[in-house]
Amino acid sequence: MALFNSLAVIGPGLIGSSVLRRARETGTLAHTLIAADNNPQVLKRVRTLELADVVTDDLEVAAQADCVMISVPVGAVEAVARQVLPFMKPGSILTDVASVRAGLGPTIQAILPQGVSYVPGHPMAGTEHSGPDAGFATLFENRWALVVPPEGTDLDAVSCIERLWELCGARTKILEDEQHDRICAMVSHLPHLLAFTICDTADNLSEEVRAAVLDYAASGFRDFTRIAASDPVMWRDIFLANREALLSTLDRFVADAQVMADAIRNGDDKAITSRIERGRSIRRTLIENRQA
Amino acid sequence: MALFNSLAVIGPGLIGSSVLRRARETGTLAHTLIAADNNPQVLKRVRTLELADVVTDDLEVAAQADCVMISVPVGAVEAVARQVLPFMKPGSILTDVASVRAGLGPTIQAILPQGVSYVPGHPMAGTEHSGPDAGFATLFENRWALVVPPEGTDLDAVSCIERLWELCGARTKILEDEQHDRICAMVSHLPHLLAFTICDTADNLSEEVRAAVLDYAASGFRDFTRIAASDPVMWRDIFLANREALLSTLDRFVADAQVMADAIRNGDDKAITSRIERGRSIRRTLIENRQA
Repeated sequence: MALFNSLAVIGPGLIGSSVLRRARETGTLAHTLIAADNNPQVLKRVRTLELADVVTDDLEVAAQADCVMISVPVGAVEAVARQVLPFMKPGSILTDVASVRAGLGPTIQAILPQGVSYVPGHPMAGTEHSGPDAGFATLFENRWALVVPPEGTDLDAVSCIERLWELCGARTKILEDEQHDRICAMVSHLPHLLAFTICDTADNLSEEVRAAVLDYAASGFRDFTRIAASDPVMWRDIFLANREALLSTLDRFVADAQVMADAIRNGDDKAITSRIERGRSIRRTLIENRQA
Repeated sequence: MALFNSLAVIGPGLIGSSVLRRARETGTLAHTLIAADNNPQVLKRVRTLELADVVTDDLEVAAQADCVMISVPVGAVEAVARQVLPFMKPGSILTDVASVRAGLGPTIQAILPQGVSYVPGHPMAGTEHSGPDAGFATLFENRWALVVPPEGTDLDAVSCIERLWELCGARTKILEDEQHDRICAMVSHLPHLLAFTICDTADNLSEEVRAAVLDYAASGFRDFTRIAASDPVMWRDIFLANREALLSTLDRFVADAQVMADAIRNGDDKAITSRIERGRSIRRTLIENRQA
């Protein structure tokens, strides 16, 4: 007995196609799988990869689904929600996988048709690759899925979405929007901003240093660049949607970097080592928590 | 026929013990291996691991060596050089593995006894671990060893040190001190400074966010923290020795981060994506160069 009779994924990219693969492989998520996208190339790949039973560019297909998962860049979630909600049937659940909440919760809750629930979630998983070919069924295993239901959401619908992610192999946690966005600014958005920036800085240096960076990247630079290969539109949307939390986290980071710079400038041995020691202690805890 | 009759490693930590292991395993570096350190614990481990034929705390042992490799934190190189040089015999070579050149080249060249050459090198390899137990014979394979001889150094001695690193599996390149330090500031020292700082920033945040960072590190944060586990004394020395190049590289980085922050603040889509694209292009080149 599957969780849903029918599950529709709108935007079967890295995340969406991984959910479809998991659903197909386990049979526990839904009896019927639907994939919708407005990009014919994506639909073609989804058909070739046989990721869904129904593959279409027609969002009216949402009428057939017990659960509709919007899996598009953050900036497009609201627009897609406005398009699919009118088709959704009473008792069905709308979810998304947006990595920033910002105002999405209350905005979409305000336009819900009678009997439809909105239970967004954010699987903390991904790779630097994107598109339907990049997905895989085990992407969410042992990762967290943060579930962020707006206030007053039906508790059964919340449980359903928690169950969905558990069936994908993830652990779930329920958070409030603001909490979610502050946490993600620190653990994900700031690291990505720094990764893009360090590549940019290297790129702006003399030709000599630029060439050397490419030759000698293994010495530290490389660790910063894996995530810099991520999708630009997705990240532009994330940065814009979470600008407030991100910019204030960046401010703190820059202030901390300046304190370190001052300690180096002044030859303050103790201040330098105590800051390095703090970094190490966080890292050690990560290893103990098996997150590293 | 080995490269040297006798090779002495002073400070058999991660790098030094890896050279000794390589020498022992291949037999091509030296017939006799000497390890010296002022820390009895280190000497005990070196004896137990059977990394050298002679294990001692007496630097006079340098008199027996055709090549003396100083493998201690940057800040201690000059002091150790002053201690061993008086013992070194004509025709022998002093080398070190310091990751910052700063004034070391001319300083040590000025105190060389007659007939002794100084050919420092910097193997661009390492892990976040340290000490004699952390080394391994393949550490330098396919890595770069930057050789930075002071002006006027005997060319045969330079070839000898290049050969030493080639026998360790590395590719070599000859650079001038200043060039070396600017390059390393970008590819290695800045990334480490940022890694220590992001851990520090996370540590300074609210207990809630701090705990969350540990839970959700896989989302980007983790990539930044591997190198943050590195040895504090070694990194304090590097930061201080290369302060000028490092601080000016950090200034550029902070300026670039502020430009990105302004683009986000002003919702300048194009500026954001073009910066992200640049990061991706560097990353792609790294992958093509097989450095990623």
